[in-house]
Parts: sequence; structure tokens; C-alpha cells
Amino acid sequence: MTTRRFAADDEKLDDLYADLATADLQPLWLLQGLLPAVPDGLSPHLWRWKELRELASRAGDLVTIDRGGDRRVLSLAHPDLGGLPFATHTLWGAVQFLGAHERAPAHRHSPAALRFVLEGSGVWTLVNGDPVRMDPGDLVLTPSYSWHEHNNPGDEPMIWFDGLDLPLVRNLDAIFFEQGPDVPSAHVPVSGSHSEQHYGSAGLAPVGAALPTTGEPGSGIHSPLLAYRWAETDARLTAMLEVPGRESATVRYVDPVSGRDIMPTLRAEMHRLRAGHRTPAVRTVGSAIWVVYQGSGQTVVGGQRFEWGPGDMFVAPSWAPVEHRATEPADLFMLSDAPLIAAAGLHRTEVVNAQG
Amino acid sequence: MTTRRFAADDEKLDDLYADLATADLQPLWLLQGLLPAVPDGLSPHLWRWKELRELASRAGDLVTIDRGGDRRVLSLAHPDLGGLPFATHTLWGAVQFLGAHERAPAHRHSPAALRFVLEGSGVWTLVNGDPVRMDPGDLVLTPSYSWHEHNNPGDEPMIWFDGLDLPLVRNLDAIFFEQGPDVPSAHVPVSGSHSEQHYGSAGLAPVGAALPTTGEPGSGIHSPLLAYRWAETDARLTAMLEVPGRESATVRYVDPVSGRDIMPTLRAEMHRLRAGHRTPAVRTVGSAIWVVYQGSGQTVVGGQRFEWGPGDMFVAPSWAPVEHRATEPADLFMLSDAPLIAAAGLHRTEVVNAQG
Amino acid sequence: MTTRRFAADDEKLDDLYADLATADLQPLWLLQGLLPAVPDGLSPHLWRWKELRELASRAGDLVTIDRGGDRRVLSLAHPDLGGLPFATHTLWGAVQFLGAHERAPAHRHSPAALRFVLEGSGVWTLVNGDPVRMDPGDLVLTPSYSWHEHNNPGDEPMIWFDGLDLPLVRNLDAIFFEQGPDVPSAHVPVSGSHSEQHYGSAGLAPVGAALPTTGEPGSGIHSPLLAYRWAETDARLTAMLEVPGRESATVRYVDPVSGRDIMPTLRAEMHRLRAGHRTPAVRTVGSAIWVVYQGSGQTVVGGQRFEWGPGDMFVAPSWAPVEHRATEPADLFMLSDAPLIAAAGLHRTEVVNAQG
Amino acid sequence: MTTRRFAADDEKLDDLYADLATADLQPLWLLQGLLPAVPDGLSPHLWRWKELRELASRAGDLVTIDRGGDRRVLSLAHPDLGGLPFATHTLWGAVQFLGAHERAPAHRHSPAALRFVLEGSGVWTLVNGDPVRMDPGDLVLTPSYSWHEHNNPGDEPMIWFDGLDLPLVRNLDAIFFEQGPDVPSAHVPVSGSHSEQHYGSAGLAPVGAALPTTGEPGSGIHSPLLAYRWAETDARLTAMLEVPGRESATVRYVDPVSGRDIMPTLRAEMHRLRAGHRTPAVRTVGSAIWVVYQGSGQTVVGGQRFEWGPGDMFVAPSWAPVEHRATEPADLFMLSDAPLIAAAGLHRTEVVNAQG
Repeated sequence: MTTRRFAADDEKLDDLYADLATADLQPLWLLQGLLPAVPDGLSPHLWRWKELRELASRAGDLVTIDRGGDRRVLSLAHPDLGGLPFATHTLWGAVQFLGAHERAPAHRHSPAALRFVLEGSGVWTLVNGDPVRMDPGDLVLTPSYSWHEHNNPGDEPMIWFDGLDLPLVRNLDAIFFEQGPDVPSAHVPVSGSHSEQHYGSAGLAPVGAALPTTGEPGSGIHSPLLAYRWAETDARLTAMLEVPGRESATVRYVDPVSGRDIMPTLRAEMHRLRAGHRTPAVRTVGSAIWVVYQGSGQTVVGGQRFEWGPGDMFVAPSWAPVEHRATEPADLFMLSDAPLIAAAGLHRTEVVNAQG
Repeated sequence: MTTRRFAADDEKLDDLYADLATADLQPLWLLQGLLPAVPDGLSPHLWRWKELRELASRAGDLVTIDRGGDRRVLSLAHPDLGGLPFATHTLWGAVQFLGAHERAPAHRHSPAALRFVLEGSGVWTLVNGDPVRMDPGDLVLTPSYSWHEHNNPGDEPMIWFDGLDLPLVRNLDAIFFEQGPDVPSAHVPVSGSHSEQHYGSAGLAPVGAALPTTGEPGSGIHSPLLAYRWAETDARLTAMLEVPGRESATVRYVDPVSGRDIMPTLRAEMHRLRAGHRTPAVRTVGSAIWVVYQGSGQTVVGGQRFEWGPGDMFVAPSWAPVEHRATEPADLFMLSDAPLIAAAGLHRTEVVNAQG
Repeated sequence: MTTRRFAADDEKLDDLYADLATADLQPLWLLQGLLPAVPDGLSPHLWRWKELRELASRAGDLVTIDRGGDRRVLSLAHPDLGGLPFATHTLWGAVQFLGAHERAPAHRHSPAALRFVLEGSGVWTLVNGDPVRMDPGDLVLTPSYSWHEHNNPGDEPMIWFDGLDLPLVRNLDAIFFEQGPDVPSAHVPVSGSHSEQHYGSAGLAPVGAALPTTGEPGSGIHSPLLAYRWAETDARLTAMLEVPGRESATVRYVDPVSGRDIMPTLRAEMHRLRAGHRTPAVRTVGSAIWVVYQGSGQTVVGGQRFEWGPGDMFVAPSWAPVEHRATEPADLFMLSDAPLIAAAGLHRTEVVNAQG
Repeated sequence: MTTRRFAADDEKLDDLYADLATADLQPLWLLQGLLPAVPDGLSPHLWRWKELRELASRAGDLVTIDRGGDRRVLSLAHPDLGGLPFATHTLWGAVQFLGAHERAPAHRHSPAALRFVLEGSGVWTLVNGDPVRMDPGDLVLTPSYSWHEHNNPGDEPMIWFDGLDLPLVRNLDAIFFEQGPDVPSAHVPVSGSHSEQHYGSAGLAPVGAALPTTGEPGSGIHSPLLAYRWAETDARLTAMLEVPGRESATVRYVDPVSGRDIMPTLRAEMHRLRAGHRTPAVRTVGSAIWVVYQGSGQTVVGGQRFEWGPGDMFVAPSWAPVEHRATEPADLFMLSDAPLIAAAGLHRTEVVNAQG
């Protein structure tokens, strides 16, 4: 957004503009780019898994978790956002690296987080004291203002994708943050989380046995199911593709109690494409991060073509048409701000012509 | 509801009352019992499994399905309801008997139905063409205006509990009914229903792959998950009872997409009690049918004590306190009209003192 | 609903049927009329104002309010309902007559009530202590479980239409009733009700100033606006008919805070027709009572033609096509059970061909 | 948000950081201020009416509406926002000046707008073709993506407060904007807007007569009532203060059809305080702009004291305690982002001790 001046401006106008500036006022008629015809905030952008993995691994060697922060996280910093460590205006995307026998201590914050596991096995994350195991392809939630710490008891590192609504919550000036105790939670890993034990069967709601929450605002407005296992996701997608004629299938991760998106601000989905399938080009208000879980193919976003393989991540900006083509059978994890866009009354979507 | 006359009524009053009757009008001041202080419509009532099973079996020998009707069903007819074949003012309860190699042909109706399997195995019910297997402890739905037919390919009969909102829908004068074709649906039994393949995992919602409905009113306002398997129900109850100090646990069967009750008019729950446990006495507006799935114990309903074992069924009338005590570990299936009572703004519940 | 027997029934079958009867069971295959193809519970029926007014007036002369009951009410008793004092399966309709200087003492009940004033002026009804004035064409609410008493300080009697969900609530076995104190509430009539003072402007919701309710179940689930004045209703209908080409207009009375129907069980609307206008024939699941406020015309309901004028009342049964024709400009008040039908997932409507 | 470096960082770490920067990644452990303990984005700020009015008037003399833009608007530019023309992270606040016989041509945009009239009379704003009159104390809506143009047929200028969700929608990258035709809409001013004619009575909803919308996304998700008249607002506040013991009263402007806030993103309220009354200090997540309509007093916001009189405007930042004290009877208009904060699951409020 820039302002323009007019050669013909006379002295009185100069005075007016000076007085306005002094009074913390700006004349609308000099503001340009304030109201673009369509969303134009970002260009598409891709980060390569090869690079992400190599840099995360080097960070694992060089930086201890307590050295500089609570977490060993590399955030996707979109070059259009002027140095902010954000993937889009509303979404935080990152890779987190937890080395063998490492632990990330407890904290909590109003931004909501989710993890999608890319590599490694057997890590435990404690969410409000509930131990949730993490394995490849699993989606694990740490909702708004829930305590969480991570624990890798194994001999191999784990790398996962972190998705948060942090940029959005920051722009709402609604961030709360609290450090937990330095001592790790004492827990005996059990066969499964309390969350899954209570909410793990479709259509069966426990009565009078609500899961513990912290009682803080936001801490109870989320899915009580904290882990969505890859085996289940895979089974549903497989079944959906058995319907004759189907070339692609999508499941949305939802709150099993309300049927709504997992978080009030975030939508997560897994998209499966048969080899050779090409999706229609669709554009939608709101931004998304796509993370390739397996397979390979290409996506045209806003006219820009990305070739991708496992672990690659790319941003689809608001209103940019998105069109996938799978070279091999492919599974793509998607994170977007769709629920909030809808809540704001701004949802809009359309199918456009193929982009070539 | 009766009317009363007064000795002092003079002739003019007699004339008035006669004229009112001719005009299809009734004077409110002569109506008694129209507005009782509290709900008083029904007494508690119990039906014994031994008798239900024996009579259903005899009906299986003597009455073919095509002889007198579409279904071999014995309806619980509450003696307080003046000969109506209804368990309560709002609920239909029955046992249905489907012999070896028998088939019940297709029909559909606006009243919603559910089946809870008590004995036998391997029956298929086709719901809008989707083949749903039925085994003991399973809850299977045939929602409002969905086509359904039953097919027993095995050598043993099956007996299940039928629960419907038929009395309610009749009192709303909203019954629609349609016979299906006489020829049975040709289908190859598959490993599982389309419904379960798509909606069988907690928190995973298929996108853009809605199940087929008939497109008739009411036919789409229900849970898309048509079967709730006993293994899942049992696992959730078991996990809930692992929480220290818990003596009983309840799961509600819900629509996995909306989190609401399985039907707009019906609530279904499974209650598990540890041996020796006694629940508080609770009364609620709205009526319920309790079906003992396994175990034994006693229930005091409205001051009346019932001893029960597997297969026994009893009615808890509106506002009558209900208090269970398990002699052995017990599982009780409950069906009620709670969602409609709530929708009408009439929900009310309270814990009362033990009844004895 | 009747049962049928077969000549060929042998002795064993006779024994079975006898044993079933003893066991409080009924064989479905002998039940006829249980599931009609379409709703068929009632025929249309009309009550004439001339008769209603004359009988109410005679009752005013002969029966004091304390003689036989709390209220001087003549209920519409549909001849198809076997002597029950109900207009339809779900709706109570009646005329209430309150003589000059009479008072009807306080009581409350779980069935919800509304009044539509036909004749007379200046009566006060106290709803949970809030004095609400009643004048012709006004709709006044006494929601579920709110205390209410009526007071006519003037020299002329008042006659109003009473609409309640009493038959529905009775069939849900959810009636609660309580008598108030014998002494009348002491109140100084003020310029307007607290309810209207707080909720009388469209789109302005008082914050932190909820109206008093009794705190009983159901007593807070209703419109906080207790009176809908004829002047406002008339102004909206007049404005709607100013749109070129419009021949009829309808306003629905709604809860100004939620936008929903005034009660969870009842819908009320005012329909205005220009002279000569004929509405399409529409049928809907659920029943209605139509009360002519002013004008004259005719209505064909389920093939039966009624000529009507001011004060006449008629029942439109579930699924019967309804088609109005105004001879003079006409205003028809309509009361139906539509919200509950919708909540039960049973809503269905269609336009049919003109009935002649 | 700044980053920090460590003296002890060795060369390998330098290389890592350089490679991360090249790869558009940022190490979380070097980010400071990303997650503050509580919201801290803004300080309180006040703009004086005397200055606003004088500058708006000078702009009226020097800048024609077509000279530099569509509107003669001075936006509140909070000094903490680095030159952005926004009052808070989510809210746009401004004064708009429309001179005698001036017209602002039609346009539309996805950000939603409202106008609160401070000075002048008789301006018409056309919202999707519906002529809505503007007078002092009126609140007028131009919801998301509705066409709007302003027309001052009188001899006096008008000044109003403009409130928009523009910063929020910009941060969601969801701005759409379209210019309308250059020729002004031909319309004959009528006695009232179609909107008010249809939705102007509390609790009366037109059936089958929806107002025209543009059919664009967002254009139908708003209150159909476009004007909230001062006379009504004043009457409700007056009535609320008649309740014994009340020292202050608040009305919220809501959608009369849904009862929800006027826009999915914006809350508007009018707060009336008796002279001498002091409100509790309350803090809330989300920001607000307060506009003094009449009266005088002082407000302590986040520990900072503002004395105010008619037309003054100030910002209450997220989580800053707000405490008003009226010197004279006062009416304060408030605009906030509360509905969106709630939709995001981030609502939180508390009463704190008086700030002094």
C-alpha cells in the first residue's frame, strides 16, 4: 500500500496533509492498493523436502533444544511477507526435529497447533497430561491453550510438519503464552491415549466423562479426539476409491462430537489421487499449505507449476486456482484457514478453466 | 380425562351444554384431568425375555412372513394405552423374529427405526440398497423413509429388538408408507456396508461422497453411519471403566457427522454397570424402553421394583424415577424420545432420593 | 386401527394369539391402518363465529369463572378425535370470554399458549408479573411454564382465540401444572410491558438485562417479546403489498432475539390477501388452525370448500391441500405445529393442482 | 519481533543460519516476541472531535470527491501500526465528510461497513438500490459486497463515523472490490427504505419476500435491516434505565432475523451511563473503537486516562481494562471485532480491579 501525491497540490493541501499526519489521520484518497479487485497478497511458493530435511538434521546436530528455545523448529517464511516467519497471512507451517532421546518441555499458547508426522516413530506428546503416540501419517492435535510437551524415547529422530493459526491469532492480537514446569511430566506410557480410548469409535460419544481441559478460554473448544491414525485415514480413502469411477478421494479431519472442523480456525484434509488423475482447477478464498505425504506429481497454483515428491510443501494463496496431477498414486495433506474464512462470511469458491 | 356435571346446574345451563356439544365445542371448566400436576400417563411395565422368545419362536413356526404382513413382529402393548400396540405414548418397542433362510421384503415409512440384535448372527439388512450385516449387540439404523428389507441366509433364526418413533409420528399425523417391489434386491454380500466404509472411523468425514438417500423428506436427516458394532461399544465402555473410581459408564450412539442423536426423535445409549453398583434415582421428562443385553440386576422405576436378566425389557414412564442396581456386571440398552422432548423445550431432569 | 383374523387360523394360532394378548403383546401382521400411505388422521372442520360468539356470551351469563374452572374457555373439539377437546392431534384451539370487571386467577403449565384478540379492548394479562395490554388484532404470548392471569378492568367483555400445544404435550406425557395464589397480583398498569420496553424495537437487543423468568424448565426457551401489536403487523403487511405485482403477503411472528418461531412447538403467521386473489393449493405435513381476523372469502381444504367471514375458524389437517380465495381484502391468522414437525425431521410440503 | 544471535555461535551455526535464510526458513529459537504472555499489540489512543471535524471540513473545502478517490474519508491511523491507516489490527475507523449537494459514486467490497451519523441530516445512502435515509444517531449498514453510494441533497454537510472490518479482511487476504457505474442511480426518495418497511418491526419476519441481494458471496450473510434509528435506540435505553437501581444500560445492534451480531465480523453497541456512574474495569480479547455520541466523562484504558466529550473517539486494545465514568449523562457507541474473536474460539473476558 503506497500513497501518491499530486503535482497540482497547492500549499493549502500540503498544510492539510501535514496536519492530518500530525493528527494520526490518513486521507483515503491518497491510499493505493488498499482495496485490490481480488485477493493478491501472496505468490505461490514451494519448499523442498530434501532441503528441509537436511537443514533440520543439521540443526539437530548443532542446536540443542534448550539452547535457544523450547522447540527445534524451522518455520516456512514466505518471501512475500517481509521477513515474518509465516507461510501465509494466517498460517504457520514448519518442520520440527526431535532427536533420539530428546524432550521438548511443556508450554501452552492460545494459537492452536497440529502435527503431521513425516518421519520417525514412537514419539509421545503429552496433551494436558494425556500421552499421545506419534507415528508416520498420523495427525495429532494440540488445541488452543492445551499444555503440550514432546518426548522421543527412541533411538531415531522424528520430523513432523507443524501447522498453527499463529499469524491469524497474532493479527487478532489474541496471543497468550505460558511456560510449563521445567521438570518433565512423569508418565508411564500406556497402550493408548485417554482421548482415543474415549472418542476413538465413530458415532459413540461418552456420556458424563468429559476429558480434562485446563479450563482456560479456548481450551475446550476443539476436537476431544487428539490423534487421527494413518491406518484409519488410509482405510477410508481406500474404501472411497472402490466406488466405480472415482479417481480421487478426500477425507476431512473433524471433531467427532460436533462434526465440525478440528479447530475453529483450521481445516485439515487428506487428498488421495490415482496415478494419472488431474483434478479440476479450483480457487477459494483463504490460503492453504499442502504437504506431500507420499507419491509424486505436479500442481499448478496461480499459473505456476510445481513438481513434487514426498515431503515437499507448498503454499496455495487466497483465490489462486489449484490443480493437481498425480504421476504416481499420491496422498496430499492440506491445512487451511477455511473455517475462519467461512465464519467471517467471506467464503467463495469456483472452478476455473485448466491453467495448462 | 372425564367431565363432571353439577347438581346445581339449572335448565339454561343444560341447554348451553347441549348446544356446545352440537357445535363441537367443550367447556374447559368441565374437563378434569386435562392438566395433571406432573406427567402421569403410564405406569412402569416389564416384559420377560423367556416369554418374548418363546412366543416369537412359536410365531416363527406358525406364521409365515407373507401370511399376514411384511414382518414377524410382536409389539410391546402397554396395558395402560387402551389396546394400542405401543410401549409408550411416543415409542414403539417389539421383538422381531426372522427364521433361517427367511426374507422380509422391502418397504419404507416416515417413522424411523432401529434394531438392537439379541440372538442370532449373519442377517443382512439392506438400507437404501446398502447391505448391513447384523450380529449380537449391534445397533443398526433404518432412518426415516429409507428403504429396508431383511435377509437371513443362515441356518439359525435371529431375534432383535425393534425401536421406532411410530406412536409419536402417528400423533403428529405424519405417517407416510410405501411398499417396495416384491422381488428381493439382488446383491452380493460384501465385506462391509458402504456406510461403514465411509463413516466408520471417528473424526474422518468423507468429502464430496455423500451416501445415497432416497431424496424423500426426512430421508437425509439422520446419521449416515448405519451400524454401531458391539466390539466398538464394548471397547469404549471397557476403557471408560478403567478410569479409577468409575462404577458405571455410558456411551450414546450419535451421528458421527453432526454429533447429534442418531435420529431427530430418538436417543439410544448403552449403560454398563459394575457388579454391585447402584445408580442414583433420576427422573426425566420423556419415556424410555430399557432392554437388558447381558447381566442381571434390578431396577426400581416409579417405586416399582423389577428383577431382570438378559433380554428382559421394561418401560420407564415420563418423570418416573429410575434407579438401577447390578447383581452381575450388566449392559443395558436404552431407547428414549429425549431429542424430541428437548426440541419441544420440555426437557427437565432431577436426581431424587433413593426409592427403597 | 383394527385387527383382522383369518378363517384358516388353526387352533395353535388361536392359542398363540391368546397367549400374546395375555403377555401384553400384539402381532404386527394383524394390525391394520397402523401405517397409512399418507397422513389421514383428520377431516377439515369449521366453526362459525356467530355460533362461537353467541355460546361464549351465554357462558358469560351463566358460568362464573370460579364456578367450574380457572378460565371461561370453549375448546374446539374436532369430531374425528373421539370426544377429546382438541382441534387437531397437536393443537388446542378455543375461544375465551372474559366479562367486564372479571379476573381469571394465576396458574402456569408446561403447554405453551398464545392469545389472538378478536373483540374487546383494554384487558391486561400478567405474564410472570409483567402487565401486557390486549387489544384487537394483538398476539400475546404466555410461554411454557410462565405464570399468567387475566384482568378485564373495563365495562365490555373481551373474546380472544386461545392456541396451545396442549394435545402435543399431552401425547409427550410432559404436562406440568400449578395453581397460583388466590389473591390477584397487585400491579399498577403502566404505559407498556417490561417485555415491550426491552424488546420492542427491531434489531435492538438489551445487553445484561434479561427479563425475569420463573427459572423452571421451558420457561426461558421462548420469545422474550410477549406482545405483537396489530398496528405493527398491519404496517408490515401494507408495506409488503406495495411491492408491484404482489397479491398477498405474510408475516411470521418470531422471537426477536433468535429469529426462530415464537415457541419451539408453535408457528404463528398473519396472511393478507387482496380482494380476488387466489393462493396456490399447498399441502404440508402438520396441522393448522386458521382464524379469520377480517374480510371474507373461501378456502378449499382437502377438497372441502368453506365460505368464511370475520371470526370463523377452521382446521387444515396434515397433508390436506389448502387454497384460499379472498372475496374482500382479508387477513387470516394461522397457528400450526410446523416447528415441531421440522424438529422431528418430518417436514414436507408441495404445491398441488387447484382443487376446483 | 526481533531475532537474536549468540556470541558463542560457531562457524557451522553461521553456515546453518545463512542456509536457512536462503531456503526461506527461520529458526524458531531465534525469534523473540513471537509469543507474548498476553496480547500487547497496541497502546490506547484517542482522536479529538474538534480536530477531526476541523480537518474533515478543510478537506471538504480543498478536495473534491472525484479528485483523489471515491470517498472523502480520514482514517484513524494508530501510531503503533507502522503507518498503516488502521485504528486496530482488525478495525478501520474514520470520519467521512459529505458536503452539501455532493454525491459519492457506487462501489462495493468484501469488507463490511457501518456508518454512525454524528452531524448533519437528510443524506441518502443507496444499499443495493434501497434508499436509506441518514440522520444523527442512526446506525446504517452497508454489508459485505453490497453496492453503496451516498447522496447529500441538502444544504448542509454531513459527517459520520465509518467502521469497517477492512484490516481483518486484508489480513485474511480476502478483499474483493468493484467500481459501480459512473452515473448515479436514479431513484425517487420514498418515505422509508424497503429494508425498514419489511424488517422494521420487532418479531415480525416477512415470509417469501426476501430483500434483493447481489448474489455475491457474503452479500447475504448479514442483517436485512439496514438502519437502526436513534429514536428507537434512545427509547430502549430510556426504558432500561427506568428499572430501579440501574445506572447504565446497553443495547446491541443485531440482525432481527437471526438475533446475531449485525455482521459476522463486527459487533456494535450503544452504552448509556447516568451522570456520576462508574463502570467496572473489564478487559476482553479483541479490540474496540469507542465513539462518544453525547455527554462527557472519562475512560481509563489500560491504565491511561482519557477525558472525552461529543465526537471524540478512542481505541481500546485487546485485553486492556476499560473503565468508564460519566460526568454528564453520556451515550457511547462501541464497535468491536467480538463476533470473529468468538468464532475463532479466542473469547476471554474478566473484571479487574479499578485502575485508579
